[in-house]
Amino acid sequence: MTLAASNQLFDAYFTARPMRRVFCDQGRIQAMLDFEAALARAEARVGLIPASAVAPIEAACQAELYDLQALGEAVVTAGNPAIPLVKALGRQVAADACEAERHVHLGATSQDVMDTGLVLQLRSALDLLEHDLERLGQCLVAQAERYADLPLAGRTWLQHATPVTLGMKIAGWLGAVTRSRERLQQLKPRLLVLQFGGASGTLAALGEQALPVARALAEELRLGLPEQPWHTQRDRLVEFASTLGLLAGSLGKLGRDISLLMQTEAAEVFEPAAAGKGGSSTMPHKRNPVGSAVLISAATRVPGLLATLFCAMPQEHERSLGLWHAEWETLPEICCLVSGALHQALSLAEGLEVDRQRMAHNLQLTQGLVLAEAVSMALAQRLGRETAHHLLEQCCKRAVAEQRHLRGVLGEDPQVSAELSALELDRLLDPAHYLGQAKTWVERAVAEHFALKA
Amino acid sequence: MTLAASNQLFDAYFTARPMRRVFCDQGRIQAMLDFEAALARAEARVGLIPASAVAPIEAACQAELYDLQALGEAVVTAGNPAIPLVKALGRQVAADACEAERHVHLGATSQDVMDTGLVLQLRSALDLLEHDLERLGQCLVAQAERYADLPLAGRTWLQHATPVTLGMKIAGWLGAVTRSRERLQQLKPRLLVLQFGGASGTLAALGEQALPVARALAEELRLGLPEQPWHTQRDRLVEFASTLGLLAGSLGKLGRDISLLMQTEAAEVFEPAAAGKGGSSTMPHKRNPVGSAVLISAATRVPGLLATLFCAMPQEHERSLGLWHAEWETLPEICCLVSGALHQALSLAEGLEVDRQRMAHNLQLTQGLVLAEAVSMALAQRLGRETAHHLLEQCCKRAVAEQRHLRGVLGEDPQVSAELSALELDRLLDPAHYLGQAKTWVERAVAEHFALKA
Amino acid sequence: MTLAASNQLFDAYFTARPMRRVFCDQGRIQAMLDFEAALARAEARVGLIPASAVAPIEAACQAELYDLQALGEAVVTAGNPAIPLVKALGRQVAADACEAERHVHLGATSQDVMDTGLVLQLRSALDLLEHDLERLGQCLVAQAERYADLPLAGRTWLQHATPVTLGMKIAGWLGAVTRSRERLQQLKPRLLVLQFGGASGTLAALGEQALPVARALAEELRLGLPEQPWHTQRDRLVEFASTLGLLAGSLGKLGRDISLLMQTEAAEVFEPAAAGKGGSSTMPHKRNPVGSAVLISAATRVPGLLATLFCAMPQEHERSLGLWHAEWETLPEICCLVSGALHQALSLAEGLEVDRQRMAHNLQLTQGLVLAEAVSMALAQRLGRETAHHLLEQCCKRAVAEQRHLRGVLGEDPQVSAELSALELDRLLDPAHYLGQAKTWVERAVAEHFALKA
Amino acid sequence: MTLAASNQLFDAYFTARPMRRVFCDQGRIQAMLDFEAALARAEARVGLIPASAVAPIEAACQAELYDLQALGEAVVTAGNPAIPLVKALGRQVAADACEAERHVHLGATSQDVMDTGLVLQLRSALDLLEHDLERLGQCLVAQAERYADLPLAGRTWLQHATPVTLGMKIAGWLGAVTRSRERLQQLKPRLLVLQFGGASGTLAALGEQALPVARALAEELRLGLPEQPWHTQRDRLVEFASTLGLLAGSLGKLGRDISLLMQTEAAEVFEPAAAGKGGSSTMPHKRNPVGSAVLISAATRVPGLLATLFCAMPQEHERSLGLWHAEWETLPEICCLVSGALHQALSLAEGLEVDRQRMAHNLQLTQGLVLAEAVSMALAQRLGRETAHHLLEQCCKRAVAEQRHLRGVLGEDPQVSAELSALELDRLLDPAHYLGQAKTWVERAVAEHFALKA
Repeated sequence: MTLAASNQLFDAYFTARPMRRVFCDQGRIQAMLDFEAALARAEARVGLIPASAVAPIEAACQAELYDLQALGEAVVTAGNPAIPLVKALGRQVAADACEAERHVHLGATSQDVMDTGLVLQLRSALDLLEHDLERLGQCLVAQAERYADLPLAGRTWLQHATPVTLGMKIAGWLGAVTRSRERLQQLKPRLLVLQFGGASGTLAALGEQALPVARALAEELRLGLPEQPWHTQRDRLVEFASTLGLLAGSLGKLGRDISLLMQTEAAEVFEPAAAGKGGSSTMPHKRNPVGSAVLISAATRVPGLLATLFCAMPQEHERSLGLWHAEWETLPEICCLVSGALHQALSLAEGLEVDRQRMAHNLQLTQGLVLAEAVSMALAQRLGRETAHHLLEQCCKRAVAEQRHLRGVLGEDPQVSAELSALELDRLLDPAHYLGQAKTWVERAVAEHFALKA
Repeated sequence: MTLAASNQLFDAYFTARPMRRVFCDQGRIQAMLDFEAALARAEARVGLIPASAVAPIEAACQAELYDLQALGEAVVTAGNPAIPLVKALGRQVAADACEAERHVHLGATSQDVMDTGLVLQLRSALDLLEHDLERLGQCLVAQAERYADLPLAGRTWLQHATPVTLGMKIAGWLGAVTRSRERLQQLKPRLLVLQFGGASGTLAALGEQALPVARALAEELRLGLPEQPWHTQRDRLVEFASTLGLLAGSLGKLGRDISLLMQTEAAEVFEPAAAGKGGSSTMPHKRNPVGSAVLISAATRVPGLLATLFCAMPQEHERSLGLWHAEWETLPEICCLVSGALHQALSLAEGLEVDRQRMAHNLQLTQGLVLAEAVSMALAQRLGRETAHHLLEQCCKRAVAEQRHLRGVLGEDPQVSAELSALELDRLLDPAHYLGQAKTWVERAVAEHFALKA
Repeated sequence: MTLAASNQLFDAYFTARPMRRVFCDQGRIQAMLDFEAALARAEARVGLIPASAVAPIEAACQAELYDLQALGEAVVTAGNPAIPLVKALGRQVAADACEAERHVHLGATSQDVMDTGLVLQLRSALDLLEHDLERLGQCLVAQAERYADLPLAGRTWLQHATPVTLGMKIAGWLGAVTRSRERLQQLKPRLLVLQFGGASGTLAALGEQALPVARALAEELRLGLPEQPWHTQRDRLVEFASTLGLLAGSLGKLGRDISLLMQTEAAEVFEPAAAGKGGSSTMPHKRNPVGSAVLISAATRVPGLLATLFCAMPQEHERSLGLWHAEWETLPEICCLVSGALHQALSLAEGLEVDRQRMAHNLQLTQGLVLAEAVSMALAQRLGRETAHHLLEQCCKRAVAEQRHLRGVLGEDPQVSAELSALELDRLLDPAHYLGQAKTWVERAVAEHFALKA
Repeated sequence: MTLAASNQLFDAYFTARPMRRVFCDQGRIQAMLDFEAALARAEARVGLIPASAVAPIEAACQAELYDLQALGEAVVTAGNPAIPLVKALGRQVAADACEAERHVHLGATSQDVMDTGLVLQLRSALDLLEHDLERLGQCLVAQAERYADLPLAGRTWLQHATPVTLGMKIAGWLGAVTRSRERLQQLKPRLLVLQFGGASGTLAALGEQALPVARALAEELRLGLPEQPWHTQRDRLVEFASTLGLLAGSLGKLGRDISLLMQTEAAEVFEPAAAGKGGSSTMPHKRNPVGSAVLISAATRVPGLLATLFCAMPQEHERSLGLWHAEWETLPEICCLVSGALHQALSLAEGLEVDRQRMAHNLQLTQGLVLAEAVSMALAQRLGRETAHHLLEQCCKRAVAEQRHLRGVLGEDPQVSAELSALELDRLLDPAHYLGQAKTWVERAVAEHFALKA
C-alpha cells in the first residue's frame, strides 16, 4: 500500500535530492525528535529534570525507531503529527528507562515541536540553497566575463532591438542571484528562531524556570530566542518562502531567456548536450530544452504555493486550525521546487553552449534596422529629435518595403548624406561599435558578487 | 533512499486513500500503459498492425513490470516520463515477442500518452468524487430535514442577527453540493476525451488511417473524440480543476461554520467524537475540530494550486515547455486534497453532534436584541420605516446601556405600547415565531438534490 | 480631489469600454437602485405596499440623483454601500412623496441589494461577452478556413517539429472559444438568480408574503429564484469568474502564439498594422505586438484575482466580514480585463497579417529534419521502430554535423536507399505531403462552432 | 464618459487617501515627468545638452499640463503611456522653446521613464507606510503595556486553552509590525534605484557620457545606481510587494483576532464606536466590525495580486510584453490596499474597547478546564506525565459529564487529594497565577520596537 501510493515520479526531475531528503517524512520526524532531545538537555541544564533522564531520551530520539506509516494514520485523529510522535517517544523511552519517561516533552506543546523542527529543517535548507547559490553566482561570474564582448541582438517585446552582449545578459542573471543571497543573509536572524511557548504561548507550565529553559533550549539548538512565541505570527516563515519565490522568478527568467535563444529560429544558445537529453519519442533530431522547462515550471508553480502561505497568515488567536495545516506541505514543496530549479540552473550555466556565428548572422536579420537608433541619435543632435526620428522612420520603412539593407537606403538619402559620411554610416551600423555600457554592467555585477562574499 | 525520501506523512489526514491511489506513481504508469494497450488494439482493428502484436503488447502493459525509480531518473534527461516508459515497454515486448516490438506506440507522441493517461485517471477520480458527493448530498438531506425546525442565532458579520434554523444552514451546504454535482455532469463530455495527435498534432505519421485509428482508440478507451488534439489548449483540464476548487470552497465554508459553532463560547455543534480525536498534548480537556481543519486547509491550498493551472494555460505553439510541466503534480494534488476534504465532510456530516439547549441559551445572549427586527417591521407599517427603525434603535441602546432584556424596555416605551400589546410583544420576541422561510429553503434544497439524481 | 485620484490611465488599453461602463460606480449604484425599484413593484403586486408608492420610488431610482463621492465616504462607517444608498433613497423618495418613503427596501437586507445588483451587472456583462465571443468565433472560422492548407513549422518545446497548418492552429483557438461559449450557456441558470433573504436569509420580516414577494421580484428582474438565499454560498459567482479565467487563459494562448510567430526571427504572422501602433520611442523600425501584450497580461493577472475569489469562499455563517468585501472589486476587475482581452483578440484575429513566403522559408530552417519523422515512420514498418528511429537519428546527426540537408544524407545512406527510392524520399520530405488531419481538425472545429450556434 | 466610468466607490473604505493620490493617474504622470526633468538637468550637468534647455523642459514637466484622457487613449496604440507622454512633452516644450525640444528624453527608453517614475512613487509610498507603521507600533506599545496583566482565555483551535493576557496578544501584533519595519529598511537600497538603460539597456545612445549621465541622474533623483538596468529583472519590485504582503497578512491576523473577540458570544473586545459605524440596515442593535473587515479583505486580496507579480517575473530578454504590463496596475493596487489596512489598524488599535468583566466571565466558561494543565503539570512531577495526563483527562471528562466545575471534581478525587491540598488546588485554578511569561513577552516586544527606532 505505501509503495503503491508513492508519489515520487517527478522528484528527480523537479527537485534536488538533498533538499527532498531534508523534507522527507523521516527528515520531519528527526527534526521534531531533535527538538525533544534538546529540550531534555536544556531542562536538565537548568535542573528541571534529572540529568539521568537525558541519555535515555536522546537515545530514543532517532527517527528510524518509529513507524512512519502508523504515525501518518495517527495524524488523522490527533490533527497533527507531534501528538502521536510524543506518545510514541514516551513509550520508547519508557521501554528502556521508565523513570525518564515522565521528563519527555515537558512544558512544550505540539506546535513547539513542529515549528522548531521545521526551523531546523529550514536551516538545513538554507545551507543547501546558499551553497548552491554561491556556486551559481561563481559560475555566472565566469560566464559573464567570458562572453563580455560577444554581441547578440537585444530583444524587446520579442523584436530585435539595439545589440547587447551575452555577458551583459548573464550579468543580469547574476545580479538577481546576488540579491537573493543578500536577502537570505538578512532574513536569517528573523527566521532561525526557537518556537517554544507551551499550550497558549505563556510557558506557564514551567513556572519560574520558563525563561532559563527557553534560553538554554535556544542555545542547544543554536537558534535565536524570539521576542515571544510566534504560533500565529507566521511572517517569519512566509518571508523565507517569498524570498525563495523571488529566486524562483529570477531563475525562471534565466530559463525563459535560454529557451527563447534555443528556438530553432534563433539557435544562438543551447542547453548542454548529454546522451539522450531532450530527445523526442517521434522526432529523432529534436533537442528539447528540458532544463529550462524545470526553471519555467518552478517559476509557474511557486507563486501559487506562495499565495497559499500568504493567505494562511491571518491565523486565529493562539493557534489556528486549517491555516496552520495549510503550511505543512506547502512550504517544504517550495523549498524542494526551488532547489530543483537551482540545480538545473547550475547545470545550464556551467555547460551553456554558444553559437557565435549564429548570433552574428541573426544580428543582420533586420538588415541594419536594429542600429537605426545609432544613426537616429547621431542625426538628432544635428536635426532635432523629432526630425531625426521621423527621417529614420521613413528610411526604415523604405528599407522594409524594398527589402533592402538600411545602409543602402541611408546612403542614398540626401538628408542623411548631408550629415553623415559613408564611413560614419558604416561605423554606426556595426554592432560591435554600439554596445554602450555592456562591459561596465558585467564589471559591476561581478563586483557586487564579490562584495557580498567578503 | 526511496523510502528515506518518502513524503506521505500527511496523506492519511489530508487526502482520501482511493484518490491517492489513482494518482500514485503506479497509477500514473498504469494509465499510460492502458493507453498503449488500447492503441495496439485500435491499430490492429483498423489493420494497421497485425492482430498478433496485440497480446504481447497488452501483456507488457502492467505497471508492476517497470522500475518506477529508474523511470523517475530517466525523466531527468527525457523531460517527461512517457519517453523512458515507451522505451522500457518496447524492451519488455521485445523480450517475449521480438516481432511485436515494432508495433508499439505507433504514431503517438509522448504527450498523447501522458494526457490520455491523465484523462483516464481523471475519469477514476470523477467516479470517486461523484460517488462521495452523492453520499454527502444524501446525508445532508437527512440532516437538513432532521433539524429543519431547530432555531439558532443567525450570525452576520459574526454578530447575532435574527434567528435561522440549523436545517436551513445545512440546506445551504447541500445546495452547494448539488450544484457541484451538476457542474461535474456538464463538464464530463468536455473532459473525458482522447488526446491523440502525434508529433505536432496532425497524426500525419498514420497517413490515411489516422482518423479511423483515432476513432477506434477513443472507442477502446470509452472516451470522446475531441474536435482536434488539445496539447496546448488546456481549458478542459483547468475547468475540471476549477470545479473541484468550487467544491473545496464550499466544503471550506462547511468547515468554517462548524469550527465557529464549536467554539468554547458557542458550543452549539460538534464534530463527531472518537477515541483520542482532537485531544491536546497538554490540555486533557481539549476537543479540537480536527476535521474542520482539513476542510479549511483544503480551501486554503486549492486556490493557489488552481492559480498555477490558470497561469499555465497560455502554452506555446504545439507543445509547451515548463507550463505543461507545471500541471503534472498540481492537478493530481488538487484531486487528492479535495477528495480528503470530501471524506472529512462526509464524516462530519454523518456524526454531527448538536446541543439544542445551548442553541436556545445562546439565542438569549443579546437579551432579545436579535428580534428587534421583528418589532421594527411590525412598527414600520404603522409609523414609517425610518421612525420605527429609529425608535427601536433607541430602545436597543437603552436595553444595552441598562443591561436589560429588550422586552422590558419595549414594554415601558409609550410609543411602542401605543402600537403593540404585551401579547404581541411576547410573540414578536419568540425566536420560534420568526423563522420565516427557513423550512421552505430546506424543502427546495432537498428537491433540487433529488431532481438531479433522477 | 476626485479627479486627482482617478485611476483610469490604462482602462482604454486593458479593458473594453462597454464593460467598464457596466461596472463603473454609476453602474453599480444603478443596478442596486434597479433592485429597489423592482422590489417596490413586486411588493405592490402582492399587495404588501400600496400601488401608489411604486411610482415615487421608481422615480427616485436613478443613479444620477445621488452623490457618488458622498456615498463612497459613507461606506467607511457603514461597511457597505447599500446602507447609505438606501438611506439616501429614502430621503429622495420622502422629498416628493412622504408616504412612499416607508415602503422603500421593505424586508430586504444590504446584501440582497448588493448581490442582486451585481447579478444584474453580470447579466449585462454576459451579454457583452457572449456577443463578442460569437463574433470572435465567427472570425476564427473564416480565418481557419482561409488558411486551412497553409503549412508552417509545428513547434514543440519551441523547437521545430513536423509541419502543421495555420488553419489548424487557428482552429485550436476556435475550439477553446466554442467551449467557453458552451460553459457560459450552462452556468447561466446557476448565476442569474435573485438574492433575497432579508437580515439572516429567512425573509422572516415579510411573514406569509415572503415567498410571493420573492417570486414576483424574481419575475420583475427576469432572474431565477434560487433554492435559498446564497449570502455565504458564493460558488455561483466564483464559477462565473473561473469560466472567464478559462477564457483569459485561452486568449492568452492566442496572444502567446502570435507574439512568438511575430518574433524578428520567425516573422510569419503579424498583428494588424495601424498608424503609430507598436512603435518604439527610440527604435523607429519597431513594430511591437501591443495587442498580444494585452492578452498575455490578462492571462497573467486574472489567475491571481481568481485565486482571491476562491480563497474568499469559506464565508462565515449568514454573512461574512472581509471575505465578502474581498469580492467587491475583484470580480468586476476580472470581467473588465477579460473584456479587454476579448476586444484585442477580435481585432488581432480580424486583421491578422500572414507572410506565406516566410513560413515556407522557415520550414526549411532545419534542412529537412522536421520531416525526419515521415521517413522514420515509412522505414519503421519495414525495419522495426527502434531500428528505424536509430537509423534516422544517425542520419539527422550527420546532417547537423555536416550542415547539410537531410535529403542529401538520406540519399547517400545505403540502408535508407535500400528501402526508399529517390522519388519516395522527395515526397516524404515535402511539408505539403505531411499535414495529416490538419484540414479535418479545421472542419471539426468549425462544425462545433456552428453546432453551438443552432 | 470619464466620470461615468469612474471606479472609486470603495476607495475611501479600502485605501488610504494619501496613498491613492501617490498612485492616481496624475501621480503616475508627474513621476514620469519628474524623471524627464531630472534627465535634462543631469544631461546639462555633464554637458550633453545646453544648460538653456533645462528650464523650458522643467517648466513643461507639470502633470496638470497634460490631457490624461488623451494619454489613456494613446496607450492603446503605443502599448505604454511613456511614448505618448514623451511626444506630448516634446510638443509642450516646443511650443515655448523650439530649441529645447530636441533635448527632451535623450538616450532614454519608455521603460526607463516608467520604471524610474514608479520607483519615485514607491519612495513616496514607503514614506507613508513607514510613518504609519511607526505610529501603529507606538500605539501598540502603549496598549500592550496597558493591558499587560489583563487575563483572557487563550484560544487554540478556537477552543479555550490556558489563559493569556491581552497585552501579550497585542505584543504579538507589535512584533510583526516591528519586523515589517525592519524589512522595509533592509530592502530600501535594493528598491530605490534608478532605471536607465536606453533601448536595450546598454545606454549606447549616450556614448562615452552614458555613465556620467547615469550617475548624475541618480544623484538628481536621490536614487541608487544599480549594477545594471533591470528592465527584465523584477525582483526589486516584487520583493517590495511581498514585504507589503507580509504586512497585509499580519494586519489580517490583527483583524481576525478582533473580529473573533467581538463575536456576540465572546464580546471581550470591540472596535471603537462611532456614530452610525457598523450599523445594520435591518437590525438596529448591530455593531459590525467594519474595520476588521477591511483588514481581512486586504489580507485576502493581496496574496492573489502578489502571485500575479511573482508569475510575471520571468520576463523575456531585454523587455517583456505582457508580463511587464501585468505589473502596472497590480503593484499600485497592493500599495493602496495595504495603506488602507494600515489606516484601519491604526484606528482600531487606538480606540480599542475592552470589556474586562466579560473576559473574566469567559475564563470560567469551561468551569476550570482551561487550567487543567496547571494541575496536570503539578501532578506530572509526582506521578509521571502519562499518569497525570490520564488522571486529569478522567477528571475533566467527569466535570464535563456532570456539568460541574473542575475544582469540585478534583477536590473529590482521592489520587489528586493525596498530592495536592485544597489551597494548592485553588491557586492552581486561578488564571491570574498561570500567566507564565506573558509580561516578559510584552517587555521583549516593546524593547524590539524601541531598538529599531534608535
